[in-house]
Amino acid sequence: MDKILDGRHVYHSVLDRLTGQISDLKKATGKSPGLAVVLVGEDPASQFYVASKKRACKKIGVQSFEHILPATVSESELVAVIESLNKDDEVDGVLLQLPLPKSLNPDRVLDLISPDKDVDGFHPLNVGKLLLGLDTYKSCTPYGVCEILDHYKIDTVGKHVVIVGRSNIVGKPLAAMLIQRGYDATVTICHSKTENMAEITRAADILVAAVGVAELITADMVKQGAVVIDVGINRINDETLEKGYRVVGDVAFDSVLEKASAITPVPGGVGLMTIAMLMTNTVQSFRNRLA
Amino acid sequence: MDKILDGRHVYHSVLDRLTGQISDLKKATGKSPGLAVVLVGEDPASQFYVASKKRACKKIGVQSFEHILPATVSESELVAVIESLNKDDEVDGVLLQLPLPKSLNPDRVLDLISPDKDVDGFHPLNVGKLLLGLDTYKSCTPYGVCEILDHYKIDTVGKHVVIVGRSNIVGKPLAAMLIQRGYDATVTICHSKTENMAEITRAADILVAAVGVAELITADMVKQGAVVIDVGINRINDETLEKGYRVVGDVAFDSVLEKASAITPVPGGVGLMTIAMLMTNTVQSFRNRLA
Repeated sequence: MDKILDGRHVYHSVLDRLTGQISDLKKATGKSPGLAVVLVGEDPASQFYVASKKRACKKIGVQSFEHILPATVSESELVAVIESLNKDDEVDGVLLQLPLPKSLNPDRVLDLISPDKDVDGFHPLNVGKLLLGLDTYKSCTPYGVCEILDHYKIDTVGKHVVIVGRSNIVGKPLAAMLIQRGYDATVTICHSKTENMAEITRAADILVAAVGVAELITADMVKQGAVVIDVGINRINDETLEKGYRVVGDVAFDSVLEKASAITPVPGGVGLMTIAMLMTNTVQSFRNRLA
Repeated sequence: MDKILDGRHVYHSVLDRLTGQISDLKKATGKSPGLAVVLVGEDPASQFYVASKKRACKKIGVQSFEHILPATVSESELVAVIESLNKDDEVDGVLLQLPLPKSLNPDRVLDLISPDKDVDGFHPLNVGKLLLGLDTYKSCTPYGVCEILDHYKIDTVGKHVVIVGRSNIVGKPLAAMLIQRGYDATVTICHSKTENMAEITRAADILVAAVGVAELITADMVKQGAVVIDVGINRINDETLEKGYRVVGDVAFDSVLEKASAITPVPGGVGLMTIAMLMTNTVQSFRNRLA
């Protein structure tokens, strides 16, 4: 196993696999999967993510439909767009780019995306199926973590996975995935209220940091030989760079690298995987809807 | 705190609280909550549970509606009963007693119970909401565990809760509840594939056994001073008793009692709490439907 788990490599390997599948499906059916992305307002980070998703779609042969709405859109107008996409037969996945402007309630709108087209895996029905071990769309970022583990053949059966962070989009669904049969991991979730954090993280065979605190996980918190997966993406000031900041993860990379048997870097680790798994879910939805 | 956590006492305290609430609601609205129980076949254990639920309803002033169907009922007939109960305005909760005869698929039928009347908390939508920290009906047995912790003011914030067992009706939803804000526990789920089980259980401040293996948890697996919650109900042969068996939990009670700061007995611990929380959810549904 490589010591540095290369997210970019896994990303391309997933996209290559999907390209082949989509090409075969198109030959068989004459149709291609379609992903609709709804963007409200002009947040630059959101625009960046939407552009990345669109590029990935183009690369693998997924049609992408963009719906750009002004920040002043009313909830009922946004809901009308979602509902029309739910009904649109060309659309296999509906993605609402977050965050929304403060005037809109994201939970209420996300709940209206049809669970059958919820390729982000955020709908409570799909989250519930995930925890119950039923077939569903898996939340993309934790699904990406699992894809990296699978790609590098990192054994999880009976292993102790400690997840730092209990967010609805990473920590909770990742725990839900890894305790299922197949992964069969022993899973611990810890968070800001956890007592004796270092003692708990040192028990991890596989340590996942998904808390959004720059370089929180230091070498003394890691067991010798552990696999370390860093889901964090944090900007810290760096006057030596022209842009004035650099991007780091939740793990103090250089020191933890010495102790870990394998580690994902930031950037170049889990980050891109979210898009790869979004594409995987979109192709899955296309198949489901063909069936 | 008492060393023996008395489930019977907590059960009666929940039922007393509900009796007062139901009486007040009846004064205010002229209506009472209603629970419909659907029993398929003549399994004696199921008949016993249904009778216990009926008694609890009567005790607190919940109307109970029994629907007893023959073991030979078809799925479509069963579905028709469920659908009529979903629509029945007198019915706040619909409970399908499990197990079903082998000819029927429980997952498919359970999914048809309206999530709004799913007072067992088994519907994937409600399980998803539980994991996401949204308002919902909590699965009754784990909810009962939390009620015991609440009643005896056992602090969970930052504490390490280790749950042995990953079932869909206890281990998984209990983990989902205890990691939320408010409980704020550090939660570990382990199971049959877990390596070094004893090492992990010994790290628990609160140890929950919900695996269905008689007396699996022995004193050497428990930290001095831990709180131990035993969800198991197992029959083991005992020729000295007329009935030929006795009921024990997943914890070797006598030896673990020496080390624990508090422990639930079996019987007389978590067992009755499932019914108490079923009643709690039924009253909650009644309130929701009034609102």
